[in-house]
Amino acid sequence: MWKEGVFLSNYEIPALNKEAGIQAKEYLDTLTKPVGSLGRLEEIVVQLAEITGQRQPVMNQLGIIVFAADHGVVDEGISAFPQQVTRQMVDNMAQGGAAINVFGRQQLAKFSLVDVGVKGEEFSEPVKNRKVRQATKNFLQTEAMTQEEVEQALAIGYEEALAIFEEGVDCLVVGEVGIGNTTTSSAIVATVTELDPAGLVGYGTGISSEQHLHKIEVVRKALELHQIDREDGYDILRKVGGLEVAAMVGAMLAAASNRIPIVLDGFISTAAACVADKIAPGALHYMLLGHQSMEPGHQKAFEYLGKVPIVSLDMRLGEGTGAVVAYSIIQSAVRMVQEMATFESAGVSGKNE
Amino acid sequence: MWKEGVFLSNYEIPALNKEAGIQAKEYLDTLTKPVGSLGRLEEIVVQLAEITGQRQPVMNQLGIIVFAADHGVVDEGISAFPQQVTRQMVDNMAQGGAAINVFGRQQLAKFSLVDVGVKGEEFSEPVKNRKVRQATKNFLQTEAMTQEEVEQALAIGYEEALAIFEEGVDCLVVGEVGIGNTTTSSAIVATVTELDPAGLVGYGTGISSEQHLHKIEVVRKALELHQIDREDGYDILRKVGGLEVAAMVGAMLAAASNRIPIVLDGFISTAAACVADKIAPGALHYMLLGHQSMEPGHQKAFEYLGKVPIVSLDMRLGEGTGAVVAYSIIQSAVRMVQEMATFESAGVSGKNE
Repeated sequence: MWKEGVFLSNYEIPALNKEAGIQAKEYLDTLTKPVGSLGRLEEIVVQLAEITGQRQPVMNQLGIIVFAADHGVVDEGISAFPQQVTRQMVDNMAQGGAAINVFGRQQLAKFSLVDVGVKGEEFSEPVKNRKVRQATKNFLQTEAMTQEEVEQALAIGYEEALAIFEEGVDCLVVGEVGIGNTTTSSAIVATVTELDPAGLVGYGTGISSEQHLHKIEVVRKALELHQIDREDGYDILRKVGGLEVAAMVGAMLAAASNRIPIVLDGFISTAAACVADKIAPGALHYMLLGHQSMEPGHQKAFEYLGKVPIVSLDMRLGEGTGAVVAYSIIQSAVRMVQEMATFESAGVSGKNE
Repeated sequence: MWKEGVFLSNYEIPALNKEAGIQAKEYLDTLTKPVGSLGRLEEIVVQLAEITGQRQPVMNQLGIIVFAADHGVVDEGISAFPQQVTRQMVDNMAQGGAAINVFGRQQLAKFSLVDVGVKGEEFSEPVKNRKVRQATKNFLQTEAMTQEEVEQALAIGYEEALAIFEEGVDCLVVGEVGIGNTTTSSAIVATVTELDPAGLVGYGTGISSEQHLHKIEVVRKALELHQIDREDGYDILRKVGGLEVAAMVGAMLAAASNRIPIVLDGFISTAAACVADKIAPGALHYMLLGHQSMEPGHQKAFEYLGKVPIVSLDMRLGEGTGAVVAYSIIQSAVRMVQEMATFESAGVSGKNE
């Protein structure tokens, strides 16, 4: 929690409102459709009811926060694209030309773009300049950042989330841009799940088979070097985290603390979710999983969290795109409850007995 | 084809524009994302390009036509709900209270509701009264309808589709309401795929296990009785079809003839698609599959057509709901092409070489 410039590491995640979930389920069964026939949409409504405490949850305004940062570990040659692409993609997003902008406009989302650690000078508007440092350090050599930097990035994420909630946002997607961040996420997810990196590391933005083997080795060596405490979210972030990942964790904690549903995206987003739930157990209950990414580590991460993706579209772009594409289905679920007639109100007969 | 009141059974389905598909793929690879990283969205764009002939396909206006009719075969006790529910659900849809209305409003869709065979008197506005007859006959006793009735229903579907296209609709969902129509669809899909009804017949709106076995028997007996020519779409419709299914086929043929993409829904919609492709081979190329329904026969039907669902949300409501929920993802695909920056326009570096 962030209060008057001081970061307090005691988060209180409220308990889910199970009673609201039960009431939502009862109400769903009165709507003019066979019981359960809207499948996942009905499950989403029940989860949103438990999160928000509303029997008929509303979802009026999606918010997207994209955090950007660079990664020291790119020095190891683990990415298909050069590091300057982080900066170029932030500029592209600032101008509205990236996929996340397009899908965000489709959902009439509020959009916030925050630099927490991109290499080079400050960006101009509308990018928010909140650089903690210029890129993490190469975690194959040393810890990625200091405890203070972790806490600063977490606090920025927390604050930026509170800021977007004040604009009326009642559902949050936390996206990212950062060349190298699938390597960071592989290290995080391997730590949390205790799985071998070979089953987690993917091709990111499109590396060769040779680079892929090298990327696995980089992650293995980092884990050997750091001996991370898998139950300690701060330890994970400090040793192999990314600045944007830490900020994402902070934003997720702000949402969970405020009973605002979070729609997870792909590998990086779900890696951040794993850390968020370590720092504040119970945070995962405030998360829905938007989509299944093509990154192999994503499936391991969301299975660890016990989540089931809403859509599976063979996407692997990141930025928050899969979550925002899935948001429309969450909207359908919410509108179903708000707008459908009941058997009684419409005068429709029930089942034959 | 329907011309001045005469139904002509020679449909001409245009060939796909493969060149436009190739150009669309080339353009997709210039956008600011790793090649192929938007997965199914990119495939959808290529298919839409082939359908519409546009390198950058646009999709400005969804149209939904729901055809309603009753089924004589309900006399065999194959449905969980009484027959009057068809009529009541048409009234509910006319008042905007059904799931299809809710999801249609979310997508700002044009909506048309057409009675082609509901039992009882005419409906009031906005329902279009185009009753061919009051319900089909019980196809366990006799043929469901005459050849003339089939052609009339097809022509109505065709005309209603042309009417909605004139309102600017450039993407079509064809929905249905008709108590008993999963039994009809089971008979159609069993005929087309030559599969045993036991693997196709589902629980519809929620019948018991006992009724389920009975429903399988009803379909088996009907197939034995009628000895349908599986290559003859007219024969299928006449012997075991539904009036709303025939109208759906007509609407799909109108869309395919006019290079307008059709988004298929679940079991009934896909059964109609199978028949449409028998009547006018090649029609299936103008269809995208919105979702995978929980009805077991749906999977058999779409595999027969070689289609892959966009979403899989455990839905089994019909009406067109799964297709309309999936439409938002098709919109995301189209907007990606319309709005994303290219590497060149955004000044983003390409991959490391």
